Amino acid sequence: MRMYDLITKKKHGEELSDGEIGALVRGYATGKIPDYQMSALLMAIYFRGMSDRETTSLTVAMAESGDTLDLSDFGTLTVDKHSTGGVGDKTTLIVAPIAASIGCKVAKMSGRGLGHTGGTVDKLESFPGYDTSLSSDKFFEQVGRVGISVIGQSGNFAPADKLLYALRDVTATVDSVPLITSSIMSKKLAAGSHSIVLDVKCGSGGFMKTPEDAEILAEGMVRIGKRCGRNIAALITNMDNPLGFAIGNSLEVIEAIEVLRGGGPEDLRAVCVELATAMVSLALELPEEEARARVLNALSSGAALDMLKVWIGAQGGDISYIDDTSKFGRSTYNHEVRASKSGYISSVNAEAVGIASVTLGAGRASKEDSIDHKAGIMLYAKPCAWVNEGDVLATLSTENDSALKAAEEAVRGAIVISSVCPEKKPLVYKTVY
Amino acid sequence: MRMYDLITKKKHGEELSDGEIGALVRGYATGKIPDYQMSALLMAIYFRGMSDRETTSLTVAMAESGDTLDLSDFGTLTVDKHSTGGVGDKTTLIVAPIAASIGCKVAKMSGRGLGHTGGTVDKLESFPGYDTSLSSDKFFEQVGRVGISVIGQSGNFAPADKLLYALRDVTATVDSVPLITSSIMSKKLAAGSHSIVLDVKCGSGGFMKTPEDAEILAEGMVRIGKRCGRNIAALITNMDNPLGFAIGNSLEVIEAIEVLRGGGPEDLRAVCVELATAMVSLALELPEEEARARVLNALSSGAALDMLKVWIGAQGGDISYIDDTSKFGRSTYNHEVRASKSGYISSVNAEAVGIASVTLGAGRASKEDSIDHKAGIMLYAKPCAWVNEGDVLATLSTENDSALKAAEEAVRGAIVISSVCPEKKPLVYKTVY
Repeated sequence: MRMYDLITKKKHGEELSDGEIGALVRGYATGKIPDYQMSALLMAIYFRGMSDRETTSLTVAMAESGDTLDLSDFGTLTVDKHSTGGVGDKTTLIVAPIAASIGCKVAKMSGRGLGHTGGTVDKLESFPGYDTSLSSDKFFEQVGRVGISVIGQSGNFAPADKLLYALRDVTATVDSVPLITSSIMSKKLAAGSHSIVLDVKCGSGGFMKTPEDAEILAEGMVRIGKRCGRNIAALITNMDNPLGFAIGNSLEVIEAIEVLRGGGPEDLRAVCVELATAMVSLALELPEEEARARVLNALSSGAALDMLKVWIGAQGGDISYIDDTSKFGRSTYNHEVRASKSGYISSVNAEAVGIASVTLGAGRASKEDSIDHKAGIMLYAKPCAWVNEGDVLATLSTENDSALKAAEEAVRGAIVISSVCPEKKPLVYKTVY
Repeated sequence: MRMYDLITKKKHGEELSDGEIGALVRGYATGKIPDYQMSALLMAIYFRGMSDRETTSLTVAMAESGDTLDLSDFGTLTVDKHSTGGVGDKTTLIVAPIAASIGCKVAKMSGRGLGHTGGTVDKLESFPGYDTSLSSDKFFEQVGRVGISVIGQSGNFAPADKLLYALRDVTATVDSVPLITSSIMSKKLAAGSHSIVLDVKCGSGGFMKTPEDAEILAEGMVRIGKRCGRNIAALITNMDNPLGFAIGNSLEVIEAIEVLRGGGPEDLRAVCVELATAMVSLALELPEEEARARVLNALSSGAALDMLKVWIGAQGGDISYIDDTSKFGRSTYNHEVRASKSGYISSVNAEAVGIASVTLGAGRASKEDSIDHKAGIMLYAKPCAWVNEGDVLATLSTENDSALKAAEEAVRGAIVISSVCPEKKPLVYKTVY
């Protein structure tokens, strides 16, 4: 195999064989294929696309380039949820205990936050004592006994994807559906769960900007997941603005607890019900209607909240914080951002708000930064809502009052108030099975 | 300017500005833009193309990346000829003295041969004493006085093109019309002549495989040349087989002298008349018909042959070799390759014959190799010709008899004899002004 010939084939719109794709991934991961040839191939893939067979082959080769988690002891009950990323996305904290309370097995390795998006592991560490670095044995034992464990990512999962993604990031070849699909799905394959539910965020703050593009990606990922022998579904959900009100680690945990208590923000609750429904439907092989009924029951009966307590407790966290969320504490500075005029909330730039929350201490600008778990933003402004001049749009919480002024300006700039009510968009566009 | 943004623009089919292209070429030439970003951009250009304005801008930026030859002292009389490359292409040795004898100024720097194609400088060194490294002053003085000088290339012409070409060569991005155009035209701009005649070789042994593709390239180069303020024409000529019979340095010089004497192979003579007609027409601003009449007169009157003698003599070469070409000498081994069956010559693989001539000593496999000026191949087999079993197809000449067997096999393999007469193709498809 000469890399030159593979570039030429793809350039001319021909398919690469499984053997060629395998050699490509191994060659790049071991440094035998130089960046300049790989980037030319990536651009050719951007223009020519890849067949489902090619995308599957690339996905499998990248999954096999590193460690994989073997969850076969749990049969077909394991289920994973993956979001394409968003600001204030605390759905894992809600849907994981719901699914586990109904009999699914949730064995999840999660990342830490970097840049404007948070990480589930950081949020869980808001519970004093919560151990995110269980040994492999303890992790498996807890999943078997309790039904759920979430730990920080250890090991080297899909390293070929990491290398390829870094190259795509500097060569403007990120936005290719087969490349996005293989990148996400290679990590999900390596993560080992039999069923996978994808949350494809769509809108100004999402990975895909239109429902049409999101649907193409969702359908592609579902086809590839099935070809790889997994149960899979993809929800296309709205990300024109952050989900719920809370952005910041303990703020989001408190909001998640509210939803598990049967309350919480309407949009967050609705999306979580649909995500959990898909998870339960896939893992337990139930019709969607029955799965939804069980999910709603898990919320109303308190079973899901109980599962949260058992989970957090099993992993060493202080569960008294769940019954009394005031124990999470309150920031020293809590600054209200008020509307400077009356009108409809026209749009909210989720990314800008996410970046502002980082400056308040809720996230990391670089990997070495520490996190203030209490810091963050409660963002009350939702598109289509009417606000009067002087109404509170958001509250900024921090220990660092010198960051408040810039954060307020950023949040104010992120919220557009207009005299016209914008078109109301669905929360969940579609579920693709 | 961020390179990432330029890749994105081109990927989306937008035009790059002149400033962006200039920065791109400077950034790459100085190592500030890494290969992996440039190769992604090159592949995007392959798919999206470039407008004439962009191609012109790239051409000028690459021409200005190194030395340029200032021929403005000769006004608009200077004319250059460039071939996209072929085996046995000795046209410069013929058209340059024709044009000079009619009043054009030919001030040419030529390369040496490498691989399967020969170089004009090597051919000229078949004349004992010919000095290919005149000083700049002597070169200009000779062009002014005699009308012609051809020396070896010195200086650093279009270094950005050299770098870019090397990258294109390993990333399968050579075959892009705007990139081919800018590569060729940047070197022609730097070479300084006011008028430029391009010989676009078309066919199995040529750079472009079909007349249609050759025409697209020819028209593009003519448009770009005009935008750069030059007089320009492009001939599309057949390269299904080598031009003339001779392949090898002194063999080609002898054949060129035969054409200047009014004889020589018909195909070679015909192509040279058309090339010289375009050169004279452009440089002297004459109608094509009048230019052709002057060219034919220069051949029949002996004026062109006389100009060859004055030129070679002025540059120190022994002109007695022109009157008595037997002085060029004869190889020790001269091996005839005879037809193994009767039939029509169906095709001749020019590249394979070119490679065989290198193994006989006529060319260089690597830059350091020395050349045997007498070595080479007289290839008599022309497509459409009928041959009887036992007829001589070619004669191989060398000092190295151990190379004969492999060379004979290569030449035999390059000549296909068939019972069907192939379609006869034109020698000159078109001249694009």
